[in-house]
Amino acid sequence: MAPTTNARVLFASVPKDFPIPGETTVYDTSQQIDLEHVPLNGGFLIKTLVLSIDPYMRGRMRAPETKSYSHPWQYTNASPCNSQFNSVCRLVGYGVGVVLRSEASDVAPGKYVYGDSIPHQQYAVLANVGGLTFLERDPKLSWTVYVGAAGMPGKTAYMGWKEFSQAKKGETAFITTGAGPVGSMVIQLAKLDGLKVIVSAGSEEKVQFMKTIGADVAFNYKTTDTREVLAREGPIEIYWDNVGGDILDAALEHANIFGRFLMCGMISGYNTGYEPIKNMHLTFGKSLTFNGIHVLRLNDKYEAEFYSTVPTLLANGEMKYTEEVHQVLESVGEAILRVQKGTNTAKAVIVVAEE
Amino acid sequence: MAPTTNARVLFASVPKDFPIPGETTVYDTSQQIDLEHVPLNGGFLIKTLVLSIDPYMRGRMRAPETKSYSHPWQYTNASPCNSQFNSVCRLVGYGVGVVLRSEASDVAPGKYVYGDSIPHQQYAVLANVGGLTFLERDPKLSWTVYVGAAGMPGKTAYMGWKEFSQAKKGETAFITTGAGPVGSMVIQLAKLDGLKVIVSAGSEEKVQFMKTIGADVAFNYKTTDTREVLAREGPIEIYWDNVGGDILDAALEHANIFGRFLMCGMISGYNTGYEPIKNMHLTFGKSLTFNGIHVLRLNDKYEAEFYSTVPTLLANGEMKYTEEVHQVLESVGEAILRVQKGTNTAKAVIVVAEE
Repeated sequence: MAPTTNARVLFASVPKDFPIPGETTVYDTSQQIDLEHVPLNGGFLIKTLVLSIDPYMRGRMRAPETKSYSHPWQYTNASPCNSQFNSVCRLVGYGVGVVLRSEASDVAPGKYVYGDSIPHQQYAVLANVGGLTFLERDPKLSWTVYVGAAGMPGKTAYMGWKEFSQAKKGETAFITTGAGPVGSMVIQLAKLDGLKVIVSAGSEEKVQFMKTIGADVAFNYKTTDTREVLAREGPIEIYWDNVGGDILDAALEHANIFGRFLMCGMISGYNTGYEPIKNMHLTFGKSLTFNGIHVLRLNDKYEAEFYSTVPTLLANGEMKYTEEVHQVLESVGEAILRVQKGTNTAKAVIVVAEE
Repeated sequence: MAPTTNARVLFASVPKDFPIPGETTVYDTSQQIDLEHVPLNGGFLIKTLVLSIDPYMRGRMRAPETKSYSHPWQYTNASPCNSQFNSVCRLVGYGVGVVLRSEASDVAPGKYVYGDSIPHQQYAVLANVGGLTFLERDPKLSWTVYVGAAGMPGKTAYMGWKEFSQAKKGETAFITTGAGPVGSMVIQLAKLDGLKVIVSAGSEEKVQFMKTIGADVAFNYKTTDTREVLAREGPIEIYWDNVGGDILDAALEHANIFGRFLMCGMISGYNTGYEPIKNMHLTFGKSLTFNGIHVLRLNDKYEAEFYSTVPTLLANGEMKYTEEVHQVLESVGEAILRVQKGTNTAKAVIVVAEE
């Protein structure tokens, strides 16, 4: 078999604020791969099926000398990657691939692997299964679901909620970015626990979706004053923060005594800098608890429970999800920007190839 | 017996920033009391022995329409209190009194009561024992200790540390206001748990004291860069916050993964406004936990344990404490200002009367 194109997405430069498709990331088709003969060196070859586009990825688009909890992507103008197939300056992220060939004793062709180190390219040789999970697909679910509601975002919601919410029936929760893959799962978990659920998002379409999955009070934070809603519908016992900034301050003002703040993300700050928080002095007067959620540190404890319950609930319709599916790898840059801007309509996924 | 003077301290006006002795609080000797005949109305009469001057008191010096976790003191130019003996516009706070007369079946003359509603006046009729604790004094300790290391500040340290620190031997803690009654107790608890202890305070004298009670690294935050110390001696697993502001931000920068932030107070903001916190986005990347400490909400769980252990440790010298003793009620206003400015040298207490 002749070599075939191995398209990929490269991290070309660090964004000043929001990423710019074609400039900060570049779709590149210059590489070829011989699927039958590419050396595996004891590893295995995968075909990438789906890739996840997540808010945290902006944190990886940084200069390598800036410290953060995720590894920075290496970028092309810092470390040119024009010659090596397996170059590190392509994007990597959560995704699902199918194994085509293998020299690793623990990886058989035909297996599906999921994890956070799937390269944004059509084919890739991986050295070992470290950090990857073998998945079996529920016939009613597409692989795209396994990077969303049944993947890292769903796990973040499920594991964060189980570990930190201390939810009690009759309490009130306020959940931000409620139409996203994390927030929408949190809404449904809170309703299962018998809570009153207040949710915010940035469009009328998202507000409508949040109502269909059970939110008691759903509002568009761009057109409705968050403090007015919380004053009327609160106080809140649980706050799920995906946004940070002034909405976190509003949640602090309207938190009840013994409130729990589940700190999951701060999309308001990823591109243009974090707004300082003015109301942290309310933590002691109100006996508040904050817990930072990092899904990889909860995974060992909850992974088996998650996979044995959530995909089935999603497959039989007891839990709902939505997706914004992009059908080509070339869309990665645009999808990243949509997620950072919040103009995506739902969980953003890239379908790179059919099985 | 003829009526006697019943001196008191009144809350005269809301401070613009720092309290002004003689202006925001006023020492007043206009009232008389007949100790033998003053009507008790089913309550009891106490002679005030000692009063505690604590940082949180600034929060009570506010306009009553401003919400906060403590009750505001009523003040004289809002609700004149020139005629009633039992006026609400005198200060109240933590203190110890001895019962002189009683019509309450559960309160006998000669008993000592402790609590947060002791009026800042020489004598007071109290309606009931709600919120008060009966104390017995260890012969080696003065009553002043029972409003400090063996009182609310000591309880705050002890109960907050036991409830939230999750301290493990070999970890590193950073404790602010380490020469104060809360911080100095936390230092000693942390050392008992086998931790490396970094502490800050605002004078060389305080730095020396903190070293004598076991601090491994003690520094004056006014002359030494907090970030340099934490970069060299950290990262920190536990941060005890009594100050807020930029030092909290520095602690966030130098916190280790799974760090615990024990939020006890923010003296930097009580008088001139709270500085916004810039680094709250580090909570999720580092899986940090924040717990707000409010001693009254931990008291039921730990009070018996506290009183059965801490006073003995203090009496036999296994735990150290220091005090700044003011011998007259008239010093209340000045002592409040010293505590807010941090110019006090140790736990500030007022001796109103000997037994």
